[in-house]
Amino acid sequence: MEQAAAAAAPMARNRKVVLREYINWAPREDDMVLVDGGEVPLRVPEGSPPAVLVKNLYLSCDPYMRGRMRDFQGSYIPPFKPGSVIEGLGVGKVVDSTHPGFSTGDIVSGMTGWEEYSLIDRPEQLNKIQQSDIPLSYHLGLLGMPGFTAYAGFYEICSPKKGELVFVSAASGAVGQIVGQLAKLHGCYVVGSAGTNQKVELLKNKFGFDAAFNYKEEPDLTAALKRYFPEGIDIYFENVGGQMLDAVLLNMRTHGRIAVCGMVSQHGLTDPVGVHNIYCLVPKRIRMQGFIQSDHLHMFPQFLSDMAKHYRDGKIVYVEDMSIGLENAPAAFVGLFSGKNVGKQVVCVSHEWASYTS
Amino acid sequence: MEQAAAAAAPMARNRKVVLREYINWAPREDDMVLVDGGEVPLRVPEGSPPAVLVKNLYLSCDPYMRGRMRDFQGSYIPPFKPGSVIEGLGVGKVVDSTHPGFSTGDIVSGMTGWEEYSLIDRPEQLNKIQQSDIPLSYHLGLLGMPGFTAYAGFYEICSPKKGELVFVSAASGAVGQIVGQLAKLHGCYVVGSAGTNQKVELLKNKFGFDAAFNYKEEPDLTAALKRYFPEGIDIYFENVGGQMLDAVLLNMRTHGRIAVCGMVSQHGLTDPVGVHNIYCLVPKRIRMQGFIQSDHLHMFPQFLSDMAKHYRDGKIVYVEDMSIGLENAPAAFVGLFSGKNVGKQVVCVSHEWASYTS
Repeated sequence: MEQAAAAAAPMARNRKVVLREYINWAPREDDMVLVDGGEVPLRVPEGSPPAVLVKNLYLSCDPYMRGRMRDFQGSYIPPFKPGSVIEGLGVGKVVDSTHPGFSTGDIVSGMTGWEEYSLIDRPEQLNKIQQSDIPLSYHLGLLGMPGFTAYAGFYEICSPKKGELVFVSAASGAVGQIVGQLAKLHGCYVVGSAGTNQKVELLKNKFGFDAAFNYKEEPDLTAALKRYFPEGIDIYFENVGGQMLDAVLLNMRTHGRIAVCGMVSQHGLTDPVGVHNIYCLVPKRIRMQGFIQSDHLHMFPQFLSDMAKHYRDGKIVYVEDMSIGLENAPAAFVGLFSGKNVGKQVVCVSHEWASYTS
Repeated sequence: MEQAAAAAAPMARNRKVVLREYINWAPREDDMVLVDGGEVPLRVPEGSPPAVLVKNLYLSCDPYMRGRMRDFQGSYIPPFKPGSVIEGLGVGKVVDSTHPGFSTGDIVSGMTGWEEYSLIDRPEQLNKIQQSDIPLSYHLGLLGMPGFTAYAGFYEICSPKKGELVFVSAASGAVGQIVGQLAKLHGCYVVGSAGTNQKVELLKNKFGFDAAFNYKEEPDLTAALKRYFPEGIDIYFENVGGQMLDAVLLNMRTHGRIAVCGMVSQHGLTDPVGVHNIYCLVPKRIRMQGFIQSDHLHMFPQFLSDMAKHYRDGKIVYVEDMSIGLENAPAAFVGLFSGKNVGKQVVCVSHEWASYTS
């Protein structure tokens, strides 16, 4: 009987993206390989602990993943395994479940694999998504980890007050675009920096920043910030590190706050750029604080409710950069580190989510 | 009558130390000059607003003063004026007063000049010292600004918990020696670094640090800290900046705190050493906060009462390095920046405080 049931399971080809080997540089496309995982039965294996099998619909490309490509065990999240499928956040549809909390057809978000079908053996970590008017892929951005990073970072780390002067770097990215809009809703003056004129236009015309500039066209970042903040900066949402941080330190106001989030530009460097103006922390009494969204999960339900309302009320918009096809995931990911993406980078593995087919 | 009274005032020679010109380097002795200010009447000038004339007894040499030697208006305290007497904290005896709050013979501490007699035209900023069993000069250290810096920094910025692992750099200095002793009283494990073996001995045998090391004898600071903190550092009281900060960042524990106080080693450098490991703030969720004691003055009465009690109970000791004679003040000050002082650097202008002579 059991074998007969297994034999009757529909089968599907399962392509996957695997890490070739540990790297010590900015990720390149050929650090990842698309491999054919062969035909897999679309059923949770008999006799295994409760699990769900999901068909992956959207995968998230996030800068933190670069840290998992290094052979370094000391981080808050373990490294990937060379030769194994890359793990990341995604949205998928349940095609089989032996876990009482999930049924075939459920849409879920959470940690999954860069492949077409993933067997998830700790489904209690998944979030079930109630279908709504909000695009599913936004659960990887606006309503997902980047959105929550912006929300927790802005409200919990930046201690914002109405009227304060806020600067956001990498401002059109997955996190920055939300930080800027939340700051505007809070009554702050908000300026963002980005690396192309197209992104600068987005910041000003789509996200409603008070001003924005292309940092690549500014020979002197300190002078540029002085121009946009003649009174200085109260809050800096730090996404890039390096020279921008040095320029910001010189332009901070007394009792300013710096929420340290990404430092994308420092990822993949074995000898990160030195920051020379840390001494500014003392006379300006600056608080500079690193954070990770997962420390603030008690706020997640409030975040979801607030952000969905803002979105429905038209008070927050979201821009994502969608690559189509699992085979384009490595290029999409690599593009993060040179700022190729415009908005939140996601990969569409399958648009098929309205109804089940094998 | 008035002229007769003025004519009858006792006179005294008033030598003073003046700043020669603004500097842009680590202070040198000849950046300051001892000049003869001539004979001055030991009386507050008739017709001037209420003021006090003090005979300076002890002067404080503090690293922040280097910042006032630069031609830079943007700081929290204005620069000195070239050709004018250097200002600093001191303890003095009132020799004349036209202010109702002060009488001849009072002992006061506060901002004064590097000279034998100072006319203080805002005496409301002075603290009157009640004579006690505690050495007067300690009002420039243990019970003064450095002691309060240690107290406010440790309790308000470090958020210490019993059992936490604390590292203090420049640990035998005016501030560091108190931070370490407060941390021990709080139930922390405390390690300090200093630049000579004599200072290391002081840390271990006089101040009761659990361990201490000479950073100049450590070829690899990161490895040294790993040795003293195999579990990592919860709290770093940062007095030096540069390479030590980089090594500490690599050794911090999750949710660690760094109170940024001095950065003595960065004073006087036009191109401060780069800090390369700031990215550690993110995965370790480190809070790094600059502070200035004057933001916390609401705690000052409690500090005075706590520290005097600790001192009398023998729970806190204090080491100062006293130079004798105003003429030695420039050398004493300059020595701060090469770590020549052992303990809090003060200058004794006059031991005479028990009775008045002109």
